[in-house]
Amino acid sequence: MAFTQRLPATFHTDLRARIGAALDAEGLDGVVLDDALDVAYTTGFSHFPNERPVVAYVPRVGDAVLLVPDLEREYAAAQDVHAQVLAYPEFPGERSPFAVLRDAVGAPARLGHAGSTPVARAAELADVFGRTRWSVTDVVDRLRRVKTPEEITLHQEAARIADAMLAEGARLVAESAEPPTEAELARHVTGFGAALMHAEHDDVVVVPMLTGGLVYGGANSAQPHRMPGGDRLRAGEPFMLSLGCAVGGRFVESERTFILGEPTPEQRRYYEVVREAQHVGTEALRPGVRCADANRRCLDVIRAAGLGGFLRHRQGHGIGLGFHEPPWVSEGDDTVLLPGMVLSSEPGVYVPGHAGYRISDTVLVTEDGPRRLTGYPRDIDDIVIGR
Amino acid sequence: MAFTQRLPATFHTDLRARIGAALDAEGLDGVVLDDALDVAYTTGFSHFPNERPVVAYVPRVGDAVLLVPDLEREYAAAQDVHAQVLAYPEFPGERSPFAVLRDAVGAPARLGHAGSTPVARAAELADVFGRTRWSVTDVVDRLRRVKTPEEITLHQEAARIADAMLAEGARLVAESAEPPTEAELARHVTGFGAALMHAEHDDVVVVPMLTGGLVYGGANSAQPHRMPGGDRLRAGEPFMLSLGCAVGGRFVESERTFILGEPTPEQRRYYEVVREAQHVGTEALRPGVRCADANRRCLDVIRAAGLGGFLRHRQGHGIGLGFHEPPWVSEGDDTVLLPGMVLSSEPGVYVPGHAGYRISDTVLVTEDGPRRLTGYPRDIDDIVIGR
Repeated sequence: MAFTQRLPATFHTDLRARIGAALDAEGLDGVVLDDALDVAYTTGFSHFPNERPVVAYVPRVGDAVLLVPDLEREYAAAQDVHAQVLAYPEFPGERSPFAVLRDAVGAPARLGHAGSTPVARAAELADVFGRTRWSVTDVVDRLRRVKTPEEITLHQEAARIADAMLAEGARLVAESAEPPTEAELARHVTGFGAALMHAEHDDVVVVPMLTGGLVYGGANSAQPHRMPGGDRLRAGEPFMLSLGCAVGGRFVESERTFILGEPTPEQRRYYEVVREAQHVGTEALRPGVRCADANRRCLDVIRAAGLGGFLRHRQGHGIGLGFHEPPWVSEGDDTVLLPGMVLSSEPGVYVPGHAGYRISDTVLVTEDGPRRLTGYPRDIDDIVIGR
Repeated sequence: MAFTQRLPATFHTDLRARIGAALDAEGLDGVVLDDALDVAYTTGFSHFPNERPVVAYVPRVGDAVLLVPDLEREYAAAQDVHAQVLAYPEFPGERSPFAVLRDAVGAPARLGHAGSTPVARAAELADVFGRTRWSVTDVVDRLRRVKTPEEITLHQEAARIADAMLAEGARLVAESAEPPTEAELARHVTGFGAALMHAEHDDVVVVPMLTGGLVYGGANSAQPHRMPGGDRLRAGEPFMLSLGCAVGGRFVESERTFILGEPTPEQRRYYEVVREAQHVGTEALRPGVRCADANRRCLDVIRAAGLGGFLRHRQGHGIGLGFHEPPWVSEGDDTVLLPGMVLSSEPGVYVPGHAGYRISDTVLVTEDGPRRLTGYPRDIDDIVIGR
């Protein structure tokens, strides 16, 4: 039987109760969520965001309301969302879209919105809702950090597909007479992942970036977030496949550095240091550990090897409806890890003019310790291609 | 000779002077821009935005500063940006990234940021900059609305590629024994456009969505912003290719409704009404015309034909670094059109359970009237496939 991407209704019922309790604890009558991922989380509505406000209103008690522009109304109905759908005619329109919401729900005494709400939109909400007192709240942000068992099932399936994308990318490079360009390889693996999902799942939750990836080789890969360009991979050089996908809107990433040809001693050394750091950092992802401490243990492996000058970023980040979301496995984040958190573990070193080396797995924190959801092999013999 | 995507240095010199003059008129000492597209506009730096702040600081007088996380530092250098590059270690880090900016530029008396800045970030800026007085400004937003001749050259080339993507999509469907799925067709045409750009341009400015598109057929296309899924196109039904791409970061869109097989009288009628509305609406895009008036003339064609109940959206929107950006060709936007504005003209009708019909061209407002940058044919005989 095909895999089911849609969360069961009980997920939404339970979430609704937990949001209500959290709002109650903060003394809020409701929350207005205008981030596309917060909307997807609380209502199940996925869309490609643009300037037209799409807003979930979740009251302390009672049903959620999904405010959409008229052009999304039938798309929302087709997605069987867990909220009452309310449409405004168009943006900007003769009156604020938020006036349609206010007419439907009144003007509660105390409402919250997220810190991600743009200042202009917050001002418009305040203006339209008149005497409502507003505050910034992280109620939904906090709930999103700990995944439910139903969500973890989605992450696990996404991990299977992301690993398959890695294998397909490695296969293509190994079997090509001439290595592909970065952009060609990126298109191939993202297309492969999307096609696999459509073939094996009968209710794909389409999100704006269903599959995605950074692909770069040689000196280009020394720039950690460089986007894929027209350069061709080259024999004798490392290349990186930094791939991700979303199942039911839940992301994972699976990233490996490959070496095209017999590794040089220098390539071998950089790779092995990163592999060890990723092992140590991943082992640190346990309940009760602070994010900043896991990060330090992880990056200390690289510093102890004398490669600290090649660090460019932290160990990792939370992953869920966002492909990057809190908590941050970084200095400056004192979050204590809890079972149910899903995190990337992805240290790297970046040697200017030479290459970058990074290994990333998506890791679930459990009572028993870290559990890697992605599992592409990472011994050096597993990542050497065409030797 | 290959097409050049990078804007000349004079574009940035001139823009720098215009921003300075606009800040002076508002009594601001500088502006802090944290929107990825504002950053690309003012510095030439393209990146995939995430939670790490990337900020352009443009003072009234003097050089711009580009604040990036350390992991983007070498990517910014490789893009030869028109700003002094300043890096902070990591996010969240021990101290605010904005403290690094403040240490470099001091705390000017009066600064602005855009209305799109998130409330939490605006609060952090205010906190870090201490006695600086902040206001919301649309200085850069206003400048972005009117494109320079160098930018128009980029839009024109993007239009050529978007039209080629449409032609390739139509070819694929016409030549396939079995029609493709929406997702397959979307992947094919976006891959085709990206490959064409990489083949013909030697300095592709890579943006997060270099090519993109909505692809849907039959009843699915009655949901204007439905994302492409696993359903197969079907003989006898209309399908829509709503495609776009960016050259030098400047977007266009080119969208056509096709009919797979001999059109029925009903299909023919819907198509012809939309074609006439798009003609009338496009002719209205002239200097001195208010956006809301162009929109009314355009949509009145559909209302006069008795199809007003099938309207779901306005005539169009501005297009530039954003694939949707102000002004809005909509009721509620009284912007008076100026030469150099680039707009989509894309009325549509959406018949629930049957199909949607939309035609979009990207149109440049000139002194002499509207000039269509995209030009895929739109007579009904041009959009019938496999009859």
